[in-house]
Amino acid sequence: MAHEFTITRRVEFNETDAAGIVHFSNYFRYMEYAEHAFFRSLGRSIVDHDLDVGWPRVHCHCDYKKPLKFEDEVEIQLLVSARTSKSLSYQFRFSTGGTEVARGGFTVVCVRRTEAGKMKAANIPPEIADLIEVAPADKLTL
Amino acid sequence: MAHEFTITRRVEFNETDAAGIVHFSNYFRYMEYAEHAFFRSLGRSIVDHDLDVGWPRVHCHCDYKKPLKFEDEVEIQLLVSARTSKSLSYQFRFSTGGTEVARGGFTVVCVRRTEAGKMKAANIPPEIADLIEVAPADKLTL
Amino acid sequence: MAHEFTITRRVEFNETDAAGIVHFSNYFRYMEYAEHAFFRSLGRSIVDHDLDVGWPRVHCHCDYKKPLKFEDEVEIQLLVSARTSKSLSYQFRFSTGGTEVARGGFTVVCVRRTEAGKMKAANIPPEIADLIEVAPADKLTL
Amino acid sequence: MAHEFTITRRVEFNETDAAGIVHFSNYFRYMEYAEHAFFRSLGRSIVDHDLDVGWPRVHCHCDYKKPLKFEDEVEIQLLVSARTSKSLSYQFRFSTGGTEVARGGFTVVCVRRTEAGKMKAANIPPEIADLIEVAPADKLTL
Repeated sequence: MAHEFTITRRVEFNETDAAGIVHFSNYFRYMEYAEHAFFRSLGRSIVDHDLDVGWPRVHCHCDYKKPLKFEDEVEIQLLVSARTSKSLSYQFRFSTGGTEVARGGFTVVCVRRTEAGKMKAANIPPEIADLIEVAPADKLTL
Repeated sequence: MAHEFTITRRVEFNETDAAGIVHFSNYFRYMEYAEHAFFRSLGRSIVDHDLDVGWPRVHCHCDYKKPLKFEDEVEIQLLVSARTSKSLSYQFRFSTGGTEVARGGFTVVCVRRTEAGKMKAANIPPEIADLIEVAPADKLTL
Repeated sequence: MAHEFTITRRVEFNETDAAGIVHFSNYFRYMEYAEHAFFRSLGRSIVDHDLDVGWPRVHCHCDYKKPLKFEDEVEIQLLVSARTSKSLSYQFRFSTGGTEVARGGFTVVCVRRTEAGKMKAANIPPEIADLIEVAPADKLTL
Repeated sequence: MAHEFTITRRVEFNETDAAGIVHFSNYFRYMEYAEHAFFRSLGRSIVDHDLDVGWPRVHCHCDYKKPLKFEDEVEIQLLVSARTSKSLSYQFRFSTGGTEVARGGFTVVCVRRTEAGKMKAANIPPEIADLIEVAPADKLTL
């Protein structure tokens, strides 16, 4: 079972704004890149037509310490911070050159579409639940 | 029948990049804003579950003359430049403070999804075709 | 002095994703649109070369209740939720058709660039501080 | 001297729209990713404070053949298609699974900022011009 995954990305020019730094909204895209790569590392995809579940976000947050600039190489570390039968929470740490520059997280709920087309919370299928565990407390509170 | 429509937008901060100007890719989003508002002005929506057609782009282009900056108020003028039984072409002119800063265009094809889920070119439904005409030549070559 | 401002936007197609709903990161762009329009409503701009201050975000968060879809008309209500000598916090409420669909917020710090080009926290200039007050507690806890 | 460069990217979820495919504007971001990686492969950066030049786009275009979907692995091949003393033109070919799905290009002009802060066309510095050549005609017309 996995509780951690890290990706590395280089900041692209269109992710910056006229202040010369990465726009704060883009950190949530980076978090998502790490989440989707984490699923791929487990042999799954976040878009899963077989299991027929979706993962809308119900909460997210981010704290910014230092700016990111064009061509910075950024490490985005995902840690599974909580798990219920129907939800997963992740913590994400952004660092560049060994320095943490931001930390955030989000909570997703596992949903299935009802016949009426609405999304309804559902148990995380065992095909996924069996692959993911919460990170040890000492890692999360570092 | 309509062949022209103009919207006005103020440049948002996240649309700029570290060069301090609107990222060139965003002009295509602005074009699309004008196209979708044009459809709404005709009492239709580009996403039309009744007519069940879609409008993927097959070509687009843009020429840039002057940069756009944060909080510039931009006029985006749409002109219908060509029409076939299955496609529509638009010209878009960007101006701010009375000065044209860019000009572009795109061509869309009317498609329906086949049972296999593929998109296939289809005749523009009369509910839409009857509302749209090509702009006069002298307007297009201005 | 002002503590509240509301803008209305229609969801654009490029703001949606393959799940058919507005991508969660875009709510932070919507928040920013409201913040920047709030400053304009006060006769100021968030990009202010005279006062020479910037407003990087140090924290942001959002809770999502219902999805937003293409062409939904969204009200984004800004409330000033806190103020210190160097920072401002905002709450943002998203609603469509009278129903609240999301609620979030962010905190910005007023900064000046040092000679070395680094951003350093600075007192909010009186030209801005004198225009903005914290919303009444009963409005914020509604 | 170099006239060709290829990068590979996986389509991210936020790059798709409610039609379930990559938004057409994002192909221009992909083109730019290839251009900037091309410069890095030459030991240079598109943002170059030493040479003090910028590269605004004056023209761009794209033709779309097949859609791209979430998690598609896309090859973006850059070919230098033209060069003048002050400008560079690139062709970009998008393919996935060995099939070309789109082809486009853009032209950039080398600029320097005048003392008044305006951008003015300038000769491409030899530090860059000496590294880049136009691709053979047979490659470009393939």
